[in-house]
Amino acid sequence: MAKSNSNEDKGKGITVKKSEDFSEWYSQLVQKAELADLRYNVKGFVVYMPSATITIRKMFNILENVLERKGHLPLTMPSVIPKSNFDIEASHVDGFSPEVFWVTHAGNKKLEEKLALRPTSETALYQMYSYWIRSYKDLPFKRYQNCQVWRAEGKATRPFFRAREFHWIEAHNVFRTMKEAEAQTVEDMETTYEVLGDNFAIPTIFFERPQWDKFPGAIKTFAADALMESGKVLQLPSTHLLGTNFSEGFNVKFTDEDGEEKLGYITCYGPAISRIYGAMIALHGDDKGLVLPFELAPLQIIITPIIFKNKEKEVLEKAKEIKKLLKDYSVKIDDRNDVRNGEKYAEWELKGVPLRIEIGPKDIEKDQVVIVERIKGQKFFVPFKDLKNKVKELADNFTNTLKKLHHVKFEDNIEDATTIKEAKKIIKSGKIVRCGFCSIDKDAEKCAGTIEKEVEAFVRGSKVDKETKKFDKCIVCGKPATRTVYIAKSY
Amino acid sequence: MAKSNSNEDKGKGITVKKSEDFSEWYSQLVQKAELADLRYNVKGFVVYMPSATITIRKMFNILENVLERKGHLPLTMPSVIPKSNFDIEASHVDGFSPEVFWVTHAGNKKLEEKLALRPTSETALYQMYSYWIRSYKDLPFKRYQNCQVWRAEGKATRPFFRAREFHWIEAHNVFRTMKEAEAQTVEDMETTYEVLGDNFAIPTIFFERPQWDKFPGAIKTFAADALMESGKVLQLPSTHLLGTNFSEGFNVKFTDEDGEEKLGYITCYGPAISRIYGAMIALHGDDKGLVLPFELAPLQIIITPIIFKNKEKEVLEKAKEIKKLLKDYSVKIDDRNDVRNGEKYAEWELKGVPLRIEIGPKDIEKDQVVIVERIKGQKFFVPFKDLKNKVKELADNFTNTLKKLHHVKFEDNIEDATTIKEAKKIIKSGKIVRCGFCSIDKDAEKCAGTIEKEVEAFVRGSKVDKETKKFDKCIVCGKPATRTVYIAKSY
Repeated sequence: MAKSNSNEDKGKGITVKKSEDFSEWYSQLVQKAELADLRYNVKGFVVYMPSATITIRKMFNILENVLERKGHLPLTMPSVIPKSNFDIEASHVDGFSPEVFWVTHAGNKKLEEKLALRPTSETALYQMYSYWIRSYKDLPFKRYQNCQVWRAEGKATRPFFRAREFHWIEAHNVFRTMKEAEAQTVEDMETTYEVLGDNFAIPTIFFERPQWDKFPGAIKTFAADALMESGKVLQLPSTHLLGTNFSEGFNVKFTDEDGEEKLGYITCYGPAISRIYGAMIALHGDDKGLVLPFELAPLQIIITPIIFKNKEKEVLEKAKEIKKLLKDYSVKIDDRNDVRNGEKYAEWELKGVPLRIEIGPKDIEKDQVVIVERIKGQKFFVPFKDLKNKVKELADNFTNTLKKLHHVKFEDNIEDATTIKEAKKIIKSGKIVRCGFCSIDKDAEKCAGTIEKEVEAFVRGSKVDKETKKFDKCIVCGKPATRTVYIAKSY
Repeated sequence: MAKSNSNEDKGKGITVKKSEDFSEWYSQLVQKAELADLRYNVKGFVVYMPSATITIRKMFNILENVLERKGHLPLTMPSVIPKSNFDIEASHVDGFSPEVFWVTHAGNKKLEEKLALRPTSETALYQMYSYWIRSYKDLPFKRYQNCQVWRAEGKATRPFFRAREFHWIEAHNVFRTMKEAEAQTVEDMETTYEVLGDNFAIPTIFFERPQWDKFPGAIKTFAADALMESGKVLQLPSTHLLGTNFSEGFNVKFTDEDGEEKLGYITCYGPAISRIYGAMIALHGDDKGLVLPFELAPLQIIITPIIFKNKEKEVLEKAKEIKKLLKDYSVKIDDRNDVRNGEKYAEWELKGVPLRIEIGPKDIEKDQVVIVERIKGQKFFVPFKDLKNKVKELADNFTNTLKKLHHVKFEDNIEDATTIKEAKKIIKSGKIVRCGFCSIDKDAEKCAGTIEKEVEAFVRGSKVDKETKKFDKCIVCGKPATRTVYIAKSY
């Protein structure tokens, strides 16, 4: 990726088409709309600029409200985890060890025990759960935290999509039975569909990940994939059924109604908000720049007074009147007089402001304003007396319009294959393969390896929602198919 | 400090009086009201429980709103800082080096350059400022971030008051002139008085810290001290005039109107929200437990239905009706039937719920409810039809009542001294010394050392607000006094 946020580019639009070079388009969008600065001098770490920080904060608020409505309470954990905690669950260690940043010194003193910067908080949290959970009456026990995590990613990083420090929510819940734990993973998937689907306008599909691709320490992982225009999928929130895998090591036990001490059943859910933000700007953005759901835009309405000589005062007064009228929204007046109108329009479109209100001497004469909406660029001539209602109407419908507009739909991009050759061709054409697979258990990893090597794509798992399509045979080994799986390129 | 949040203590009240043993009282409050758990197994790191997390989140929101109203934009910086950045400003390095946690490895690979967990973000941020600030038109440049910082404290830690990881806001601003920078430090002090004084009901006084006690790298430090009932002061937000001390090293320059390249004048402001939370619970709490400003309480109203046999349904229905009526507040019904009413009251008082509404069969007969407010324990018998208005009145006045109630007032606890012997006596009696000092420049550090040794207290500096009291001589060396200073014990 280009590492420059060079100043000379400022104000200029994106120079490539999204449909032609997604990667370069995304990179330019992030830098030119001033969402992230990539010049921070630690590899894989970027600065979130004000616009991104504000939108991400709104996204956190929305998700936290839903989690709290569904009975989770927030807490705040230390961000360092002693190595000895980290070592308790074997497959968890194996999975995360290569990616852990270690704190080894305080001042110039070596620490007695080195500390992991949390890559995820199971091993910090569950020892506390062993103190907090005593009785079946304490269950279900539902907590979450809003925090950042650190992972020394081997893969190439890309701002928001994949970074060495990212900002997420992690919810960790304990239940009396496996059944209740399973029900929680369903609730987490519903939460994802609700928040990502309705609030962020991001369509996703949940897959049960194959056993070789599950969360280290989980029994099962359910992960949401979003389809990008590039034809690649991006993993978004995942929820993990941990069962009693961590409960034994961390002593998460409760005395049940029958007086017996039992292990708690645990689930965890990890929506990486900064990554979802990346997916959102990638999905909604266009060749002009950023597009955001109305509620998530840091600046929702820009007023651009059209200033002619001797009419400045009148027009600026009107602009202020409009701003006052629309005080329920985030509104700004762009009264710069050394920037041409066209340039202003391009700049605010690049930065993703949902509505632009133009007001000039002629509009004042006609007692009207011009409203331009960002998604389709539609222009509305609105009598001044209807302004407030029209803005409300456009604001209320903005996110819905965005939802309907998605160019790429999962369903339209799936093609069936029964041979590796077919699969290869489908992937090459930028689509997703649906096919039969012997299983998604550990013993099918070899077949997945063949797919990875020959098709250059990954088995994402089997669909959680009802699967209507059945295949006879595994596309690789030819054994009877027990699952219908989906294969895609991924970020 | 006691390290146990033992389960047996749960639900029991605080066993010492605040006035008799503040330290033990605070420790019990934190644990019994379930604000923090001290059993996390890394020294100096504690878990913030849901109640603390929710209140701290509200505190952040309030302060962020004020900062944004005053023209700051939020951003998000990486939490690691390369050693080479850290080394640029010499006195900054000297000040912070002994306290820095160092990240040295990723997985089992040694990093090429070790990374500091930020103890504060000047050295991360100002290199970015050198990219972002070009022209005088970019100034004033005002940014802040909400984040945590890490410092390997040598001093004993105490939850919220002093910890090795704490949560704060840091605002960093760049100006064209020293005068504008100085004006910003005044704005920061006003912000502190506004937010801490009005919203959190915490009285503070700003002192210009002596040169030997300023922020490493600053020209001047202004810090707010809050007086605790123990007679000790606690440093709360501080604002620092950095001038051009960092601008040269980090190349924070701008082209001025006259075409010349000039160094930017920088200020930074660091309200440690988690510490302010500690001060708040310490100041407002009483022998029954936690007391919080109404707006900051996670749970604002607890409804305790008084349940008699055969009347359960009627009473619970009424409780639900009340909850619905008060939907603008955070309200809960305590319908546990295995806990006695007295125990319930004590528990919710311990946890700092501002209003309790009791409703029983007799109240229903009389068409009334009983409201008990937390600060003075006043009881109100309120006709049902007036309930909503009465709650609004109590809610609106709650924080004001708290403000008026402060047992300890700075002004009442200051005594003048002209000899070290007098000063010693005043400090021993739990008060603050006001006296003359030769200066607060570096060359007076020796006199401060004498105070520290003989009076066992610290020179906090000279008052920023107009000082009416003048002394002839320095209390230590007897040279002409250039400043009136304050001496106190501190946390």
